[in-house]
Amino acid sequence: MLIVMHHNATEEDIQRVKETIEKLGYRPVAIPGAERTAIGVIGNQGWVDDTPFQDLPGIREIIHVTKPYKLVSRDFHPDDTVVRPGEDIEIGSKGSFAVIAGPCAVESAEQMSTVAKALSSFGVKLLRGGAFKPRTSPHSFQGLREEGLRILNEVKKETGMLIVTEVMSPEHVERVAEVADILQIGARNMQNYDLLVEVGKSGRPVLLKRGLAATLDEWLSSAEYILVQGNENVILCERGIRTYERATRNTADLSVIPLIKEISHLPVIFDPSHATGKRSLVRPMALASVMAGADGVMVEVHPEPDRALSDAAQSLDIEGFAKLYDSLVKLWKFRLSIGL
Amino acid sequence: MLIVMHHNATEEDIQRVKETIEKLGYRPVAIPGAERTAIGVIGNQGWVDDTPFQDLPGIREIIHVTKPYKLVSRDFHPDDTVVRPGEDIEIGSKGSFAVIAGPCAVESAEQMSTVAKALSSFGVKLLRGGAFKPRTSPHSFQGLREEGLRILNEVKKETGMLIVTEVMSPEHVERVAEVADILQIGARNMQNYDLLVEVGKSGRPVLLKRGLAATLDEWLSSAEYILVQGNENVILCERGIRTYERATRNTADLSVIPLIKEISHLPVIFDPSHATGKRSLVRPMALASVMAGADGVMVEVHPEPDRALSDAAQSLDIEGFAKLYDSLVKLWKFRLSIGL
Amino acid sequence: MLIVMHHNATEEDIQRVKETIEKLGYRPVAIPGAERTAIGVIGNQGWVDDTPFQDLPGIREIIHVTKPYKLVSRDFHPDDTVVRPGEDIEIGSKGSFAVIAGPCAVESAEQMSTVAKALSSFGVKLLRGGAFKPRTSPHSFQGLREEGLRILNEVKKETGMLIVTEVMSPEHVERVAEVADILQIGARNMQNYDLLVEVGKSGRPVLLKRGLAATLDEWLSSAEYILVQGNENVILCERGIRTYERATRNTADLSVIPLIKEISHLPVIFDPSHATGKRSLVRPMALASVMAGADGVMVEVHPEPDRALSDAAQSLDIEGFAKLYDSLVKLWKFRLSIGL
Amino acid sequence: MLIVMHHNATEEDIQRVKETIEKLGYRPVAIPGAERTAIGVIGNQGWVDDTPFQDLPGIREIIHVTKPYKLVSRDFHPDDTVVRPGEDIEIGSKGSFAVIAGPCAVESAEQMSTVAKALSSFGVKLLRGGAFKPRTSPHSFQGLREEGLRILNEVKKETGMLIVTEVMSPEHVERVAEVADILQIGARNMQNYDLLVEVGKSGRPVLLKRGLAATLDEWLSSAEYILVQGNENVILCERGIRTYERATRNTADLSVIPLIKEISHLPVIFDPSHATGKRSLVRPMALASVMAGADGVMVEVHPEPDRALSDAAQSLDIEGFAKLYDSLVKLWKFRLSIGL
Repeated sequence: MLIVMHHNATEEDIQRVKETIEKLGYRPVAIPGAERTAIGVIGNQGWVDDTPFQDLPGIREIIHVTKPYKLVSRDFHPDDTVVRPGEDIEIGSKGSFAVIAGPCAVESAEQMSTVAKALSSFGVKLLRGGAFKPRTSPHSFQGLREEGLRILNEVKKETGMLIVTEVMSPEHVERVAEVADILQIGARNMQNYDLLVEVGKSGRPVLLKRGLAATLDEWLSSAEYILVQGNENVILCERGIRTYERATRNTADLSVIPLIKEISHLPVIFDPSHATGKRSLVRPMALASVMAGADGVMVEVHPEPDRALSDAAQSLDIEGFAKLYDSLVKLWKFRLSIGL
Repeated sequence: MLIVMHHNATEEDIQRVKETIEKLGYRPVAIPGAERTAIGVIGNQGWVDDTPFQDLPGIREIIHVTKPYKLVSRDFHPDDTVVRPGEDIEIGSKGSFAVIAGPCAVESAEQMSTVAKALSSFGVKLLRGGAFKPRTSPHSFQGLREEGLRILNEVKKETGMLIVTEVMSPEHVERVAEVADILQIGARNMQNYDLLVEVGKSGRPVLLKRGLAATLDEWLSSAEYILVQGNENVILCERGIRTYERATRNTADLSVIPLIKEISHLPVIFDPSHATGKRSLVRPMALASVMAGADGVMVEVHPEPDRALSDAAQSLDIEGFAKLYDSLVKLWKFRLSIGL
Repeated sequence: MLIVMHHNATEEDIQRVKETIEKLGYRPVAIPGAERTAIGVIGNQGWVDDTPFQDLPGIREIIHVTKPYKLVSRDFHPDDTVVRPGEDIEIGSKGSFAVIAGPCAVESAEQMSTVAKALSSFGVKLLRGGAFKPRTSPHSFQGLREEGLRILNEVKKETGMLIVTEVMSPEHVERVAEVADILQIGARNMQNYDLLVEVGKSGRPVLLKRGLAATLDEWLSSAEYILVQGNENVILCERGIRTYERATRNTADLSVIPLIKEISHLPVIFDPSHATGKRSLVRPMALASVMAGADGVMVEVHPEPDRALSDAAQSLDIEGFAKLYDSLVKLWKFRLSIGL
Repeated sequence: MLIVMHHNATEEDIQRVKETIEKLGYRPVAIPGAERTAIGVIGNQGWVDDTPFQDLPGIREIIHVTKPYKLVSRDFHPDDTVVRPGEDIEIGSKGSFAVIAGPCAVESAEQMSTVAKALSSFGVKLLRGGAFKPRTSPHSFQGLREEGLRILNEVKKETGMLIVTEVMSPEHVERVAEVADILQIGARNMQNYDLLVEVGKSGRPVLLKRGLAATLDEWLSSAEYILVQGNENVILCERGIRTYERATRNTADLSVIPLIKEISHLPVIFDPSHATGKRSLVRPMALASVMAGADGVMVEVHPEPDRALSDAAQSLDIEGFAKLYDSLVKLWKFRLSIGL
């Protein structure tokens, strides 16, 4: 439930609403925003009886929220959330476009160093690379794990890039957060709720990938698990959904990007590598996502894609990435120029 | 099967290959292209024994095609097909971008005239509007049919616009082709093979929408049915596919656009109205499709969307279209400027 | 809209309701059923204003139907429809279970004769076999067409079996109906509305396969197209739907069978051959469908499956069918014995 | 890789093969089975070079396994696995059929006691009930957690029933295993690999639900994670998959049951409650699953379904369950009688 106050409601009016909410056993959440003062009701399961509020002064409107999420909704938070993983990096603000790049998995210090230096030289500031790798089969390469984190930390010191890396288990969150500037939650773990709670508590920026066959409502509800812990630094990442079509690895659902911008305040980026699974489609789809309204892209880049231990077919080499990056920058400027 | 000739193969060599194909009961198809001379084998069902060709002079390579389509493939036709429905209109050429606009259904002479004049004033040359409407329920509005065709013909004369309209049955092809410059095959009829054969025979440009849950291979195979009749004027139209996600009417599968450009020579356009089913998503997705490599878009526009007899929620009004068209033109110029 | 009359409503009351419906430009349909007299309103598009009925005597209830179908609904027709394609054959009655068997395609007189005699010797009375074959690729075997119909007619005379065969085009309905006792509409043509209208007009029993990715509502709406023409002899056939899972050819949606029995009066059968695409799964799934409430099954049987021109992998040989038929008969008796 | 030995291979031959496997850094796994002696190779990532084995005596065949799983495959373990969670309870043996029943969530001691006594009186021995509830929204009822486990333990003592309950996080496995006789892994956690490893280590029987949109290969690979830890007591549970069709909550994929019996030795049961989401469909679909070859069913039963805190629409009341149980028992006897 969302209680919208009149413009001329007094502090006393607001205080009285909050107390009434608490008396009912719920938690009041002040909703920021220049245009209106509002108070959200959190902690209820199902419908909240609004009788106790009907005679309180200063209330303009009572909105019953039927969606399974509240804090991630624009109704509860009208302005765009901007995530700031590092000093001069903004994700989700009007004037910036985030580019996260790097290999699927951390394979060796040399591999990471080569990629990081190349990416850094283009101006890329966010480096991805998996130390913990969730793999369909237990017989596949599972990542270098602790050793992978160590390598990421070295590259971080060497290049000054920020690190985006996946965490797969609640008990690893603390350790991974020592290295990661952005904690990635993979598609398979989108509904691993204990993990969501834990990254929520960490306060660290979280990149939340969409589940393989998650509806938009389910995805936003998973983000809600993080926000409920007091952590608003959530970046949504569309990475393609599972459909009947197998001509591409997944089906890139770009429509969800402008739709999210309507109903949520959270930034949303696009991963053309997993969405398509095919190197030649990465560039056109990354560019398409810019015009769909994405706040950034996350792209797999490997110094020698054909020798990659995972996701070989979808990784760009450094030259391929250079070409993509150049068009991204130009297109981003174009997008700003037409006021989008 | 595809027989690629040496550069220095003689006319005699080529003739001998063609005769051998015919002797086997198949049909030879010369494959145009500056880079190589090739001859396709059409008419076989399943594997063709290549023994009779192995000792013929002038043959560089024999390619066994395992795909269910041949004529639509770039292997058989390396250069882009450009469809020319009218004198100065090209669909599929490097320098042009096609915009097809108009209401879902022809509802009245006044409605069509209003829309057509507005669209024409912006520079739009291709007008859509359904006279025959395939509807899920027999109790829904089925289109004005013959009366609708008459109205389309009047508007055509009045504005000089070219007409894109759907044909639903083999026996109507001749009559609809009297009015339509481009015959539209709807998603529900993508595998109505008798209809495909009939529009193939008509020689008229065909806009072939992707079936609701058609794979890329099935879609291209349906196009093959038209090309086999000697009609190469086929425009593919991605209009979203059916998936588990219902936040949008369909799931726009933009990745298929650059993928088609790789494997086929046919032009491909995008229909953001059906793909999203939501007015506010039409503009961002139309723009996204430009960067994905689309050769054009088809958009639903209605003078009073909220009074439309069908597809109200996804139709732009004229002002909304003006805004979209303006950005499309600018983005198209940008795309050309970066050499895509 | 459905107008339910009081038990004690007079003939005059009923007549007055009918006339009011006609005055509004719609068509009244008397709804049979021992328990209540009701009159359906057909021919409207969208909501019908019920004001003119509110003061009429004898009306118990006015039900606004929001589904896209009416005549196929149990609300409009509470009792089970029983289709009788031949003298002593019932499909959809409590005491009978229909078995339709035969090859995917008619390939030769000998093939059909062999299969038909074998099936007939087990007691099977309904023979399937396609003369017109809708195929994804124009380069695949398209059926013997007219020659196939001729063969079917011969086998019919020879064995006395009834013929189930597909019709693909409105203009063929008349010719196919000369041979077919049940006209089959294939999955690809489920929304070929002109074809549905034509088989509706023919009055001949129709076996309507579910479209590849059709929702239950769309499927029932397609049946409605046939019933609107005055032809109630429609048998629904579940044949698997297209999903992300490719371990089987399609995903058998058996839940739809008991669901249809709740909301519609039409008989529904199951095709385990297309639903699974795998010979070894045909028997368990056919048996499963019996317990799900199916009124029958349609199974592909070929004298030499591995030499079949289509659907080889999913066809049973005659021995395999014998085994299936034996268990079907026993299970059917068991189902009756427990009152299902 | 799977190395099949000759019937007359000596112990020495077998030993030599095992040593060669270990020398290559892999782990040999003896494959039980009367018909053949075989040794599986575990621990490789990708292709294993078979050169070192080619000259060894006693080898009949070397099979390269391309599936992402090995231990769950019938190739590696030809005989059916029978899981024995309690003294006289077998899941997966020819002569037994498992019925797991109980409410979605543990709500109170009274609720559980009522249900358990009723179920027990029918002869049901396996009680389900969730203490930890994974819910899409953080604002929904999350289960009684520790208090829920306590209640389950009491009911266990009171009735002697065995407990099936979900575990959501690796760190809870030990505690939940104190109460649970079978640890349930929910659909959302099917690819929570750290959790799979942990229940694998516990040695306790595991009921592994299929993920919402998991392919058969992914599901079996998740089981492989458990078996790799030395725990073979895995029961697979089909609970419906996510498709475009929303007439039912999920789409019950019964075909997967006979398919699993072909390719794996693990028992597989069916959950008609989640698969359909609709009370009236539970009985026909449970019965259907018996004929498809299921080793058991898991059904939601609540003393007062309409007051259930979750899954109200799909829960049977006790009377409804009694009716289902009666037909299940009869059908199970029938299935045995026809030798299936």
